[in-house]
Amino acid sequence: MNGGVTAVPGILAGGVGAGIKPSGKKDLALIHSSTPARVGAVFTTNQVKGASVLVSMEHARSGIAQAIVASSGCANVCTGEQGVKDAREITRLVGDALRIPARHVLIGATGVIGVRLPMDKIRAAIPKVVKALSPQGGRAAAEAIMTTDTRPKEAALRIEVNGRPVTIGGIAKGVGMIEPHMATMFCFMATDAVVAPKTLQSVVRRAVDRSLNRITVDGDTSTSDTVALLANGLAENAALETGGRGTAAFVRGVEAVMERMAAMLVRDGEGASKLVAITVRGAASRRDALTAARSVANSPLVKTAINGQDPNWGRIMMALGKSGAKVDQHRVAIAFEGEVMVEGGVLKEGARLDRIREIMGGAEYTIAIDLGLGRGEDRVLTCDLSEEYVRINAKYTT
Amino acid sequence: MNGGVTAVPGILAGGVGAGIKPSGKKDLALIHSSTPARVGAVFTTNQVKGASVLVSMEHARSGIAQAIVASSGCANVCTGEQGVKDAREITRLVGDALRIPARHVLIGATGVIGVRLPMDKIRAAIPKVVKALSPQGGRAAAEAIMTTDTRPKEAALRIEVNGRPVTIGGIAKGVGMIEPHMATMFCFMATDAVVAPKTLQSVVRRAVDRSLNRITVDGDTSTSDTVALLANGLAENAALETGGRGTAAFVRGVEAVMERMAAMLVRDGEGASKLVAITVRGAASRRDALTAARSVANSPLVKTAINGQDPNWGRIMMALGKSGAKVDQHRVAIAFEGEVMVEGGVLKEGARLDRIREIMGGAEYTIAIDLGLGRGEDRVLTCDLSEEYVRINAKYTT
Repeated sequence: MNGGVTAVPGILAGGVGAGIKPSGKKDLALIHSSTPARVGAVFTTNQVKGASVLVSMEHARSGIAQAIVASSGCANVCTGEQGVKDAREITRLVGDALRIPARHVLIGATGVIGVRLPMDKIRAAIPKVVKALSPQGGRAAAEAIMTTDTRPKEAALRIEVNGRPVTIGGIAKGVGMIEPHMATMFCFMATDAVVAPKTLQSVVRRAVDRSLNRITVDGDTSTSDTVALLANGLAENAALETGGRGTAAFVRGVEAVMERMAAMLVRDGEGASKLVAITVRGAASRRDALTAARSVANSPLVKTAINGQDPNWGRIMMALGKSGAKVDQHRVAIAFEGEVMVEGGVLKEGARLDRIREIMGGAEYTIAIDLGLGRGEDRVLTCDLSEEYVRINAKYTT
Repeated sequence: MNGGVTAVPGILAGGVGAGIKPSGKKDLALIHSSTPARVGAVFTTNQVKGASVLVSMEHARSGIAQAIVASSGCANVCTGEQGVKDAREITRLVGDALRIPARHVLIGATGVIGVRLPMDKIRAAIPKVVKALSPQGGRAAAEAIMTTDTRPKEAALRIEVNGRPVTIGGIAKGVGMIEPHMATMFCFMATDAVVAPKTLQSVVRRAVDRSLNRITVDGDTSTSDTVALLANGLAENAALETGGRGTAAFVRGVEAVMERMAAMLVRDGEGASKLVAITVRGAASRRDALTAARSVANSPLVKTAINGQDPNWGRIMMALGKSGAKVDQHRVAIAFEGEVMVEGGVLKEGARLDRIREIMGGAEYTIAIDLGLGRGEDRVLTCDLSEEYVRINAKYTT
């Protein structure tokens, strides 16, 4: 279905330009649930955490949230005690404007590290963003959290849970510092499903692990990664409990929305022109499959070959061999979109290199690796490493 | 002292064009010791190993070697049984020409993976490279092992060991697929010192760990990395034994030569314009210091900021936080060439950004990180990630 987070009943959103970005583009987003919602959330695994992450972790602990405020252009990371005070003040101002407790407001900030938020501008803009809240405002909110993203990212899905329609929607942003361990910068989602508190947190963890933790842009891990799912219960289904009836369908729905947004993040990776799925099967274990897939997905030499549309399969062999996963080079097979290139660790006789070059000329394809050792399999989405990535990142703060 | 591997008495070398490289440049190198030498060698940790590595590992096991033959332009990796047969044949042909057993010949090959060596061309060129052997041939050999290297790499040192002059010299090549775990592609060294067999191997391991294993260009690990040190004993010193008199001085000498070549490798990293030492002190352990330094040295975002001469210290904080080493963000200090930028995890008041930009404009500098937690310290050499790196690697095989 079309739309994003505001496709969910009872969810309003908006985005305005507060003047944090010098360009004057939208940079302050707000998501508001008309009723208090259960919240499940996961945050960056980076030991250096932004002030907003620290405040949101504290607020999410209650299991209840009713709003998410997020700004772009300045990450409010490595800003000391004052940064934490600034983040708290914003949640208080938003809470006051919405007449909800500050502790029910989550906060996110993305952008340059080490610079304080321009609090005067943000204080002045909070009434504006509250006023901008609307059932059509999901897109504006998605725009207001963009940094080097070239397009806003949103997705929504309607499913049936125990005979009742349930909507799941969200917005997300990337697109640098994207790494396997808790991938995206922001993914804010909502659903009208009624979900038991503990179940919601485990659904979010599991869905993140299967979607956002299976992508990579550059192998770096942001200090501000935040995923939150608000469940406001307006669908009035019988509460979804772990292992209970209907929960599996709900989990699949959340995963589907996150997976769609995860693919959008990689497709829009900094400087990226290709979305490539690296699948590994035949590994000695599932963990090995993931380790091998990540090694291939993160190798600068594989990623530059993808950029150059160059069927340099030796680099894939190299990345498998260095991965730490168990590899017997004489058993490795590699195929591009089903077109086999490598068998028994060597170039397949009669391999159709022209066909493989043609596949690599496309915008999206799969590299399927079979290690021939066991039954472990997994998958990671990656993109190419381009000159544009370097251009974007060589001059980000200045 | 000037020169490289042929600065060592009794060591001849040469390099010729065999026609492996389409450019017609030198691509076949030979190093020959006039007398059988003890050999210490270490090889890539990549589980996918080139045919030459497999043959050299077998040959090095005897502890004796008298020649090293190495070609560039084709790596002879992932070439199956035939690749191993080809490598064996080359060692046999070289052995026959030099009248030494094939098992005393080490072999290396670097270049594209997955392509067989042009054996006809190599067979024809072996008599030529044997004829080219000379006491001035070190440079030609260094040239003949270059791939994307822009300049040959050699170093030599004369030291005194127990009152006797001892020479240590070598040649090396990079400059992509360079990663912490057994870094360089090739580093071939020789010395006239008399060294006990077991001592030689441990000296090489230790020196590699302190020099070549402390550099990174792109975090990828070649399938062909080979380091070998031939010790022909012509200096006639009393044999150097582990823990014995003079051994420490010899170890320092080997390390010094390897360190010089390691710095040359990074300085000439693919597309690199900067050589940056990342030093970490105050870590909870030495292992943590190395983990933290490597994470900073390998971060694409740090490396692009170095390229852009952009004092984006937040990315250094990010890379420390994601490293897995113990980090307390409130204790981190960061300085560029002694100019302090970050204290207590935040931008130092009065930090002289203009001065730091000026430092980053130079070709070589040090980023010193103090984690403020303990006494662990270590150091990694890295380079910038440039658009040129992507250009070089997007089109390597085609």
